[in-house]
Amino acid sequence: MIKTPYLLFLGDAPDALAAKVAQGIKDWRPDHAVGQLRLPGCKADLGLPDMTLAEARAAGVETLVIGVANRGGVIGETWRACLLDAIAAGFDLASGLHTLLNGYPDLVRAAQENGTALHDVRVPGIAYPIANGVKRTGKRCLAVGTDCSVGKMYTALAMEAEMRARAMNATFRATGQTGILITGSGVPLDAVVADFMAGAVEWLTPDNDPDHWDLIEGQGSLFHVSYSGVTMALVHGGQPDALILCDEPTRPHMRGLPDYKAPSLETLRDTALALARVANPACQVVGISVNTQHLSEADALAHLAEVEARMGLPAVDPFRQGAARLVDALAAI
Amino acid sequence: MIKTPYLLFLGDAPDALAAKVAQGIKDWRPDHAVGQLRLPGCKADLGLPDMTLAEARAAGVETLVIGVANRGGVIGETWRACLLDAIAAGFDLASGLHTLLNGYPDLVRAAQENGTALHDVRVPGIAYPIANGVKRTGKRCLAVGTDCSVGKMYTALAMEAEMRARAMNATFRATGQTGILITGSGVPLDAVVADFMAGAVEWLTPDNDPDHWDLIEGQGSLFHVSYSGVTMALVHGGQPDALILCDEPTRPHMRGLPDYKAPSLETLRDTALALARVANPACQVVGISVNTQHLSEADALAHLAEVEARMGLPAVDPFRQGAARLVDALAAI
Repeated sequence: MIKTPYLLFLGDAPDALAAKVAQGIKDWRPDHAVGQLRLPGCKADLGLPDMTLAEARAAGVETLVIGVANRGGVIGETWRACLLDAIAAGFDLASGLHTLLNGYPDLVRAAQENGTALHDVRVPGIAYPIANGVKRTGKRCLAVGTDCSVGKMYTALAMEAEMRARAMNATFRATGQTGILITGSGVPLDAVVADFMAGAVEWLTPDNDPDHWDLIEGQGSLFHVSYSGVTMALVHGGQPDALILCDEPTRPHMRGLPDYKAPSLETLRDTALALARVANPACQVVGISVNTQHLSEADALAHLAEVEARMGLPAVDPFRQGAARLVDALAAI
Repeated sequence: MIKTPYLLFLGDAPDALAAKVAQGIKDWRPDHAVGQLRLPGCKADLGLPDMTLAEARAAGVETLVIGVANRGGVIGETWRACLLDAIAAGFDLASGLHTLLNGYPDLVRAAQENGTALHDVRVPGIAYPIANGVKRTGKRCLAVGTDCSVGKMYTALAMEAEMRARAMNATFRATGQTGILITGSGVPLDAVVADFMAGAVEWLTPDNDPDHWDLIEGQGSLFHVSYSGVTMALVHGGQPDALILCDEPTRPHMRGLPDYKAPSLETLRDTALALARVANPACQVVGISVNTQHLSEADALAHLAEVEARMGLPAVDPFRQGAARLVDALAAI
């Protein structure tokens, strides 16, 4: 559990895209995002107050979150000086970078001396159990995709926001480093040892109130041969009551796999539902989330209408249209 | 790669079952099994020559393999004295125990001083790549089960033995610790980090001669919610050309999951084949291996005949009947 609220470290981000983790935190957990810290040359701006470490401390910030993806994967000297200052000022640090904070002896030593924490969210923090498959109370929704990186996290976060606006009982459950930094907790599923993947998902989505929904962040795709095992662990460990199908209709091939075509939504529906029913025979497919960022507004709306008619399920782009109709579908089961 | 041949360490095994790893090595790689080493109180006997360390050295043994599962998971004092003697005599050690040889400082120090290796086959020895899904040359067969522990390893080893007897070009590919100790190499798939599972299977079954068959050891089951992600990585990383369906027909429920029933062979066939064809559209189901150890001979034969007629595929128990008909089916595609 990462302590909130956050000061978002943007470093010397070369553009806005490099700061997308920080942007995600600001978009989805605005209460966590007290301010931003930018180094000379930073080209990103979240529109948050620029703060010094002292100002952030005074504003109650607990953790400096590295909200920027750097080039080369190493934490350079200019960053490190700032991070050491943050540790000396009593902040915890949190990072989703491949290069671990805990891999830098000077940061580790400083954190030990100051009694602060270094959170590397790519590294599993606990020993997860083997999954036991026992039926849990409460309800769970999982987004599954025709491919990787089609908008599964965005869909789950948009649904959570809509549900909270309706005063429904809902929790986004992060399974990747960006999601973990946004929410402050979760499981870095792709870094978990194979035997414990499904158990980690069970641990993440425990017994809950009968009306509570976990909105589980999906990973990979059952049809992506590099990562399908991770997806399978979500389908079985998550025991979903509801599936949302996610698609990005303009991909020429599966991400990173030039020889593989994405499956149809029908194939995804049939495959994912049959597998999900092994763990939860009551599971249903309730809606479709389409990432239409590469279509014009007119083409997007036409595509969504076609998908909705063909599949007999609400089909929306939550970025263009919000997630209200997906939540309506969830509330109806 | 573990150096062969082996001296099989049976320790103080309380019964023959405790020495089943050693038995597997003797059964499937008799050329590797030069002798056995038993401590006072050992109740197991493989029928191999009892050898001292000096006799084994003289007979050309390279590695002392711990072929016994001990109680409690720790390596006791009586074992350790013998293992230290073995290291001092220049042997490598190999173990599939949960407790690692490399977790004992005295063993590690002795191995360093004597220039010998400590192989803990539960621990991945290399950094596996992310799977790339590129089609590989050569052919691959994967055993998939209705449940865990239904005889997938036995089936693959029996097929390999039959194929070698026919001078076919075939290699058993181990994916679990027993298989790795039997063959001297492989991937401990359940201990691999999630993101690299399918890549580890690709690594294990690389490009090969057009007529070469990899017989890939299966793990888990697509229908076992604790381990299905591992199975999925085998189905996609292995790119199988042929699937063998494995069943144990007397189980009241899935292993370790009292609330889960095993799927029918028809459901396993349809699910596994559809998923396998994502990675290899030419994949076929070629035969059925049934573990009939809990049936009488008459009941076993009647059950196999019923399955064969129902499924339209050769159905055999390789333990009772050998794997010839499964190999015939493989040779026909």
